[in-house]
Amino acid sequence: MRRTIFDTDHDAFRDSVRTFISRNVVDRIDEWESAQIVPRELFTEAGAAGFLGMAIPEEFGGGGVPDFRFNMIIGEEFAYAGAGAAGLGLTLHNDICLPYLLSLADDEQKKRWLPGIASGEIISAIAMTEPGVGSDLANIATTAIRDGDEYVLNGSKTFITNGINSDLVIVAAKTDPRQKHKGLSLIVVERGMAGFDRGRNLAKLGLHSQDTAELFFDDVRVPASNLLGEEGKGFAHLMQNLPQERLSIGVAGVAAARAAFDWTKDYVRERKVFGNSVGALPTTRHELAQIATEVEVAQHYVDQAVLSLNAEELSAVDASMAKLWCTELQGRTVDRCLQLFGGYGFMLEYPIARAYADARVTRIYGGTSEIMKEIIGRSLDV
Amino acid sequence: MRRTIFDTDHDAFRDSVRTFISRNVVDRIDEWESAQIVPRELFTEAGAAGFLGMAIPEEFGGGGVPDFRFNMIIGEEFAYAGAGAAGLGLTLHNDICLPYLLSLADDEQKKRWLPGIASGEIISAIAMTEPGVGSDLANIATTAIRDGDEYVLNGSKTFITNGINSDLVIVAAKTDPRQKHKGLSLIVVERGMAGFDRGRNLAKLGLHSQDTAELFFDDVRVPASNLLGEEGKGFAHLMQNLPQERLSIGVAGVAAARAAFDWTKDYVRERKVFGNSVGALPTTRHELAQIATEVEVAQHYVDQAVLSLNAEELSAVDASMAKLWCTELQGRTVDRCLQLFGGYGFMLEYPIARAYADARVTRIYGGTSEIMKEIIGRSLDV
Amino acid sequence: MRRTIFDTDHDAFRDSVRTFISRNVVDRIDEWESAQIVPRELFTEAGAAGFLGMAIPEEFGGGGVPDFRFNMIIGEEFAYAGAGAAGLGLTLHNDICLPYLLSLADDEQKKRWLPGIASGEIISAIAMTEPGVGSDLANIATTAIRDGDEYVLNGSKTFITNGINSDLVIVAAKTDPRQKHKGLSLIVVERGMAGFDRGRNLAKLGLHSQDTAELFFDDVRVPASNLLGEEGKGFAHLMQNLPQERLSIGVAGVAAARAAFDWTKDYVRERKVFGNSVGALPTTRHELAQIATEVEVAQHYVDQAVLSLNAEELSAVDASMAKLWCTELQGRTVDRCLQLFGGYGFMLEYPIARAYADARVTRIYGGTSEIMKEIIGRSLDV
Amino acid sequence: MRRTIFDTDHDAFRDSVRTFISRNVVDRIDEWESAQIVPRELFTEAGAAGFLGMAIPEEFGGGGVPDFRFNMIIGEEFAYAGAGAAGLGLTLHNDICLPYLLSLADDEQKKRWLPGIASGEIISAIAMTEPGVGSDLANIATTAIRDGDEYVLNGSKTFITNGINSDLVIVAAKTDPRQKHKGLSLIVVERGMAGFDRGRNLAKLGLHSQDTAELFFDDVRVPASNLLGEEGKGFAHLMQNLPQERLSIGVAGVAAARAAFDWTKDYVRERKVFGNSVGALPTTRHELAQIATEVEVAQHYVDQAVLSLNAEELSAVDASMAKLWCTELQGRTVDRCLQLFGGYGFMLEYPIARAYADARVTRIYGGTSEIMKEIIGRSLDV
Repeated sequence: MRRTIFDTDHDAFRDSVRTFISRNVVDRIDEWESAQIVPRELFTEAGAAGFLGMAIPEEFGGGGVPDFRFNMIIGEEFAYAGAGAAGLGLTLHNDICLPYLLSLADDEQKKRWLPGIASGEIISAIAMTEPGVGSDLANIATTAIRDGDEYVLNGSKTFITNGINSDLVIVAAKTDPRQKHKGLSLIVVERGMAGFDRGRNLAKLGLHSQDTAELFFDDVRVPASNLLGEEGKGFAHLMQNLPQERLSIGVAGVAAARAAFDWTKDYVRERKVFGNSVGALPTTRHELAQIATEVEVAQHYVDQAVLSLNAEELSAVDASMAKLWCTELQGRTVDRCLQLFGGYGFMLEYPIARAYADARVTRIYGGTSEIMKEIIGRSLDV
Repeated sequence: MRRTIFDTDHDAFRDSVRTFISRNVVDRIDEWESAQIVPRELFTEAGAAGFLGMAIPEEFGGGGVPDFRFNMIIGEEFAYAGAGAAGLGLTLHNDICLPYLLSLADDEQKKRWLPGIASGEIISAIAMTEPGVGSDLANIATTAIRDGDEYVLNGSKTFITNGINSDLVIVAAKTDPRQKHKGLSLIVVERGMAGFDRGRNLAKLGLHSQDTAELFFDDVRVPASNLLGEEGKGFAHLMQNLPQERLSIGVAGVAAARAAFDWTKDYVRERKVFGNSVGALPTTRHELAQIATEVEVAQHYVDQAVLSLNAEELSAVDASMAKLWCTELQGRTVDRCLQLFGGYGFMLEYPIARAYADARVTRIYGGTSEIMKEIIGRSLDV
Repeated sequence: MRRTIFDTDHDAFRDSVRTFISRNVVDRIDEWESAQIVPRELFTEAGAAGFLGMAIPEEFGGGGVPDFRFNMIIGEEFAYAGAGAAGLGLTLHNDICLPYLLSLADDEQKKRWLPGIASGEIISAIAMTEPGVGSDLANIATTAIRDGDEYVLNGSKTFITNGINSDLVIVAAKTDPRQKHKGLSLIVVERGMAGFDRGRNLAKLGLHSQDTAELFFDDVRVPASNLLGEEGKGFAHLMQNLPQERLSIGVAGVAAARAAFDWTKDYVRERKVFGNSVGALPTTRHELAQIATEVEVAQHYVDQAVLSLNAEELSAVDASMAKLWCTELQGRTVDRCLQLFGGYGFMLEYPIARAYADARVTRIYGGTSEIMKEIIGRSLDV
Repeated sequence: MRRTIFDTDHDAFRDSVRTFISRNVVDRIDEWESAQIVPRELFTEAGAAGFLGMAIPEEFGGGGVPDFRFNMIIGEEFAYAGAGAAGLGLTLHNDICLPYLLSLADDEQKKRWLPGIASGEIISAIAMTEPGVGSDLANIATTAIRDGDEYVLNGSKTFITNGINSDLVIVAAKTDPRQKHKGLSLIVVERGMAGFDRGRNLAKLGLHSQDTAELFFDDVRVPASNLLGEEGKGFAHLMQNLPQERLSIGVAGVAAARAAFDWTKDYVRERKVFGNSVGALPTTRHELAQIATEVEVAQHYVDQAVLSLNAEELSAVDASMAKLWCTELQGRTVDRCLQLFGGYGFMLEYPIARAYADARVTRIYGGTSEIMKEIIGRSLDV
């Protein structure tokens, strides 16, 4: 079925994103995969092209259009181009970090940060996960103890996307370590603050274009004006923003599945075996029919979820379902597609091989599939 | 997520369907399951209540509203009430047979048949499948040879829903047996025509409230005025109407899955094991979370498919995807749900047991899952 | 691969079982399915043929050969003949009830009961499950209070196989209701004891040849000499015998899967569609290849489990794995096979339809798949 | 259940393999993964320790014991140590290449090659697959045209394991290009022959310790005495040896699954979340129970397959089933296990991450799962 959620503005935006990727991204992926990071100028190039901060008010240098369909289009186009890992930092910046600033920053903070966020000169990250704590926000060990006009941060974070590139890190820390959820606050740590160090870029199974790192805070003195939102409300702030994060991952999951499907159709159409194309085999066609159906179903579902987010109706449970379903779809789709490439599917020169490795983390980050089931299951009143 | 496709008219219609089922259906299901058929008055009662022929123009006694959402509501409410088998004949009448009459009947035929279709005095059926031919329409063996003002029918059909109750049967037959698809026409055979016999009501795994029979045609002389549509265009007529049939089955599949899920939530909430409710077990909750997610995804997808049908955009491939996905969902959902009932799930007094048996045929009738994959696969251009 | 666990004695035994089934069983299945019970003479006929109590010492009228491979052969041959439901009472008698008597009965009890068990004049059953308690043996509510030389039984049991036909029922009851597991004992209740009543034969989704009933105990006075094993050791006695019960169900599961596979091969070889046999379709062949592989793997695995049982090495965890795996295999295999029959798979005249309905309970009875996972999971030391 | 196929000789051999791996392999894996190849001395060290050519007659420097259980032990121990990729070249040498030499080489060839094979000074490879031809042996394009006492080879091969390290390559080539299968012969090409070139070491998704390369033959003149077996019988020779190749892959698949399971048990036992170990979560325990069961079933099955191979009874279809089942098991097991590691599962410092990447090719190489199904399906006579 035709997708019905886009109008001509979205179509034009998609065209420009596609052009940007073909000009600024595609030829550099191999280099970035080797470097295990994208260069900072990818952010400023994207900012210049209007692909950062579409939701930021125009007075702060943004697009002034809070419509997640634009975010969706960026995630989709990077995936379709086999550049999902390269685009992940941008998506994190736009879909996951920015909403905290938009909803929680005061005017002074907005003036300080939003223009750089929109231009790409300030690269953002968010730091929740800690070694040994995982998703258990109530037991975060990083502390931010108020001392006069400053917070003094101590602790460490891990698995931080944009961990090396980031200039502005939203850190979840305990301002009151005696409390559980209620002791949590969000503190913005900035590049160059004394005592703020980054670990090595972690060696990962996939997402090689993308920097993931540990962050260390050793008596980092952060001005109190870098508190984001209210002190002690950090948990509520996180809960408020998780649905968009999870939907963003789900959207990218469906796009990655569709990309894999499209590459596979092209491959099996060309690839000959025993005198016919692989695609002419009935078993291949049935397999592709199954995949096509799954992608189609998920696409229309996630499109509705985006509309629901736009309408501010998407609940935490809704978002958990979207993340769960779409990343599980992604996982099984890239696996099935890779299989149809035979030995070539194992060769990194084929995008399906990278997509396979990249896909493995989406069932984990942003909350594992098991955590999603826990959230959904608890809502069922059984 | 909230379903967004209904307005207040649909809500009111749903209320009245629900009332009808609770008054006219629920208490009689056991009796109908034993009798292996619903009584003819179920049709006239439904007709009187406005639940037949909603799409028939008012001049012919119908509701005058060609909006498949009303059909959807009927299918859903029967499923939710554990009365899917009892409602199947009505659904076939409304969703599958009627469209042929609406799109193909000439004015004289409409006058003759539509009022009875709308009132429930004429119960309809459609006869495509033959023993030994299955879904292979090109090789249908039933013949309808023109002889003066009549067609002379010979052959047999099987697996005919409403096979015993039906008064009007749309029969796919070869008017030109030398040809394949191009020799096919649709002939309306009516109750009481000489040489038209019905076999026994077939003993089935499930759908016990529902009559399924073989039909035999032995030199049945049918007036030429009972030709539906054009002679030799039968295949095209069938192709035109299959999408709505398949979507109807898909809609019912999602509804059956949702019903099973709701019964299961109620059961595990009440059922105690080792001192707790079964629903309090984390493993149960995760299983239900998975089921809830799958039902949610399919619901929003199939809702969009109904809008697409209403917009006359739903293609044969789209409908095949909907049928494939939604009936496979139904199959695995009733299976998983039954499991959570433990031993009680195997007892027919629990609706889940019947729903399990009933569900098994939906992956088969209206075109098997394999046929759906064939249709989808051929469209992929690989 | 060739099965390697049988020698010529087993082969001869299998031949005689097969002959027995073809002469005494096959033509009567329809009648028994309608009656929802097998006649008592099926047991005496089987006894006369040497198919009951193979493990009973010859002095008590048995075969004197404690070798589970003979039990396996009976279960397999009934399944292969599409007579699994009809054979279930015999299997319960041999595989599940008899071991309690062999391991726990004293000499007097052996003299009283074993000859009848071997001849089929005494039909046995075992009663653990209670309404509202399920698998939770520690909370069994049925009591057997010692009063002089008698136990006075009160309570009820449900889902009892051979519930109507049985003459001798091994009842798990609390002889000390203040205790949990340690208060449990096994008491043999016999047909005709005052206060022992049977409920109706339960209406089930499948297993229609087989009687399943509730049992009611209202001040049933049972002589103390009917205590089986030690008072207060009932739980241990049950734990001791459950592995063989679960392996028996697993063995039958693999056999049912193999039967379904063989019927399906025959069907698709004969059935034509679009001018070819269904079996000639590559998609059918791949599906059957998958099924063949799964059956093969499970067969060799369960064969080894039978040798392990014979060597008295099969642990509770081993048996749980065998039941879990083999019944899940059965479930998915009959489902996949039925699908290949198309509409005929839904017709009860085809054995696959009954096998589908019958199969649904094997993932539940004898401990659900979830209970099996719980047992296995607890053993893993994580 | 206890594995029953090993005796004390095998246990002692296993101990020595384990010691070897812990001393000679484990600490060097990171280096080899970076180098994308193992050093040649791994072969000579393995040879010195008695782990090469166990089946080679003692007169040629081998172990003189044709018992595949020894091969199995090597494959298992490398997998258990997280060194599957490092061991793959050895396994290929022992399990896949050597049998061709043992069964086909004449005495002169045996004298020339077997001592080096046993000592590790001659590293072997086999070259069947060609770019653009895949598994289609009948259409191999590489030619070996007889010219006097030599064959002149032209063509190229791809995906060759030990492609860089190998000294002796068994090449499938057409000695009669006008024929299909009957034109095929096996020619041994040796390091240093003029016109024999190797492409780059291919960049792969996984198996990073292992060299995989393209081979190019440009008028390579090979002495006729390097013909292996009979001219024109190459296809039959390949068919003869494929079962052992496929069983070898299946054996390694089960071992990889078991290794993943064991690492995961250790991880979830230690890893805390929300105050408990991950392993204490019922959902984790059930997941592990399912995995444990699948590994157990596959282990006993593949053990029987090894006995069947030893008895020279393992057919092509049997071996296809073993490969299909065990590699599919491997794929889903490493995937499920990795998930339980959460974010750490995506980090290459954890062996599960490498095992995940390595596993992806086993469903492809040695014949894809689809080819296995084709072989099995054709044998079913449907």
